[in-house]
Amino acid sequence: MTDPRLTPLAAALPATVPFTGPEALERRRGVAFRARLGANESGFGPSPHAVEAMKRAARDAWMYGDPEVQELRDAIAERHGCDPAHIVVGEGIDGLLGLLVRLTVGAGTPVVSSMGGYPTFAFHVAGFGGRLLTVPYLGDSPDPEGLMGLAREAGARLVYIANPDNPMGGMHGADVIRRMVEGVPEGGLLVLDEAYAELAPEGSLPVIDPADPRVIRLRTFSKAQGLAGLRVGYAVGPRGLVAAFDRVRNHFGLGRVAQAGALAAIHDEGWAREVARRVAEGRAALGRIAAANGLAALPSCANFVAIDCGRDGVFARAVLDGLLSRGVFVRMPGVAPLDRCIRVTVGPEDSLAVFAEALPGALEEAGAAG
Amino acid sequence: MTDPRLTPLAAALPATVPFTGPEALERRRGVAFRARLGANESGFGPSPHAVEAMKRAARDAWMYGDPEVQELRDAIAERHGCDPAHIVVGEGIDGLLGLLVRLTVGAGTPVVSSMGGYPTFAFHVAGFGGRLLTVPYLGDSPDPEGLMGLAREAGARLVYIANPDNPMGGMHGADVIRRMVEGVPEGGLLVLDEAYAELAPEGSLPVIDPADPRVIRLRTFSKAQGLAGLRVGYAVGPRGLVAAFDRVRNHFGLGRVAQAGALAAIHDEGWAREVARRVAEGRAALGRIAAANGLAALPSCANFVAIDCGRDGVFARAVLDGLLSRGVFVRMPGVAPLDRCIRVTVGPEDSLAVFAEALPGALEEAGAAG
Repeated sequence: MTDPRLTPLAAALPATVPFTGPEALERRRGVAFRARLGANESGFGPSPHAVEAMKRAARDAWMYGDPEVQELRDAIAERHGCDPAHIVVGEGIDGLLGLLVRLTVGAGTPVVSSMGGYPTFAFHVAGFGGRLLTVPYLGDSPDPEGLMGLAREAGARLVYIANPDNPMGGMHGADVIRRMVEGVPEGGLLVLDEAYAELAPEGSLPVIDPADPRVIRLRTFSKAQGLAGLRVGYAVGPRGLVAAFDRVRNHFGLGRVAQAGALAAIHDEGWAREVARRVAEGRAALGRIAAANGLAALPSCANFVAIDCGRDGVFARAVLDGLLSRGVFVRMPGVAPLDRCIRVTVGPEDSLAVFAEALPGALEEAGAAG
Repeated sequence: MTDPRLTPLAAALPATVPFTGPEALERRRGVAFRARLGANESGFGPSPHAVEAMKRAARDAWMYGDPEVQELRDAIAERHGCDPAHIVVGEGIDGLLGLLVRLTVGAGTPVVSSMGGYPTFAFHVAGFGGRLLTVPYLGDSPDPEGLMGLAREAGARLVYIANPDNPMGGMHGADVIRRMVEGVPEGGLLVLDEAYAELAPEGSLPVIDPADPRVIRLRTFSKAQGLAGLRVGYAVGPRGLVAAFDRVRNHFGLGRVAQAGALAAIHDEGWAREVARRVAEGRAALGRIAAANGLAALPSCANFVAIDCGRDGVFARAVLDGLLSRGVFVRMPGVAPLDRCIRVTVGPEDSLAVFAEALPGALEEAGAAG
């Protein structure tokens, strides 16, 4: 029963959630997964320096974290060669997307994203009453010209793109993203989700001026830095917009342990580079596993690989179910024709071996059922 | 400059923040505080079991926390003798208050609180366009009859009270709170902030049915459990309202380390009891320090004591500034006549000794200036 005190907007929101966690699936199955390859976490773990920093901070967890997150913002700003006034740190990209939508989107505000793009962005747009307009993928990639065309046509406030892309893993070159920035309509903002940036090939990312008023970029410590369980992300953008986050954010929301872990992680560049190297190896290994089963892995610039199961979404869902029942947690894209794929996160060798062992049976079962 | 893409509501919000953190003050002073007694943190620290749990979880920080927070919700529900469907866990009471206001308050929705009550609640009400109506304290306590009278008159959606109270430290008896619940107007909700509940005298809290549709209670691991730096709080309330949080919350917002620490803390009841005992001793010690300086400490049921500096807000502010300049972080209430007091958190003996040593000089300086 809906509580009668909800606002009309809240009362109209669906009860669905963006993602079901692997723990919920484990509770339903009654047994733990043998390989956790569904949430694009980094099975290579966090930097040992970050682990040490979190352990040291554990004793100090009685103190609130610095609400200005100054040390971490300074370190991030240095990395991006800008003033910390261009940086806001928050509870993961998810949390920051929620605040950004809250700041810019009201009832009926048009917002543009890709059909099959990041569900949590759509969740936030719906949550603040925005009107989400979507553009189908062009092949297996978000369609930059289609997105910007619709944005201009609709007078969109926000245009969202993830680069590298999730859930398909590809990426657009720097020039394509630059053209998107140039094409942002008056009163609009490009929301450039770069969660997987550190895993992309060197030199492939666009150089964007943090002060450019047309774009806000989102980064996270959840992927290359392996700190998904700390929930630390940040946005890089123009000062006025970044300052506005202070008007609405949960000022003490970023805890002391989280800040300590992220700060140590950002100073251990070597770890992120090593993870990127192992992720690249893992992508190749997943490609070989796919090929050995007669499937094609899509090219990926992220820490996961979309594997084309060669038929439709029903078939891919059956393959995914077969993997889940064999103790392998993976996910898949939500809309056709992307949903002909399953999405497998790169992990350490032992977890990929579990996947390799489970896949043939899952495929056979799915084929027999079809 | 305000970003032109902000919603009218966001554009109209002030740039002020609810609280300045001690770290910001330290950066301005250029030197660390000797005693951190301003944020009602628990200087007695977290349970050693919680510290161990956080350390163990640090290595696993590459995994997102369970978005359903099931284990922790189960443990909390057991403590409250209810089904976990009555419990929502979030990023501290601050985060939960933000979600609650978002769910229930729109443009112009009347909301009632005390003048000088918790600034972060007022921050959220303003942040969602609500109309905050306030009732002055009655003496040094929130005025239950005044609050409920105004709520009925205004048709308020929410009525906020903290019990034990912050910033003054007193509390109302169980019968008074029960009468508030009985008096909630049709379509209204009592927001009962029990952040300091575990520090109140045994038997002083009202027994409230988690299913009672008229009230939502807020609890935290930041005070008695000494885990302010993890940011974990929870709400206990009717199922329909609790379920609605899922429509808007940051589902992966509660990290793995935070969940592990809080879970260990809730299982170490002995620690919370021991902290409550030491807090009671500390309140008495602060009373003696106040008396030794010719001041009166207000009775407190929380982990802080409001010390009446005997004159007006200007004088108390001067005392507070004198303490800050002597390396003692304390805070004070924001409105008259409460602002004749400074608010000093209970801490371990060594930090109270620093306060005791600094207070006479601060008082003398403030007196000389007046």
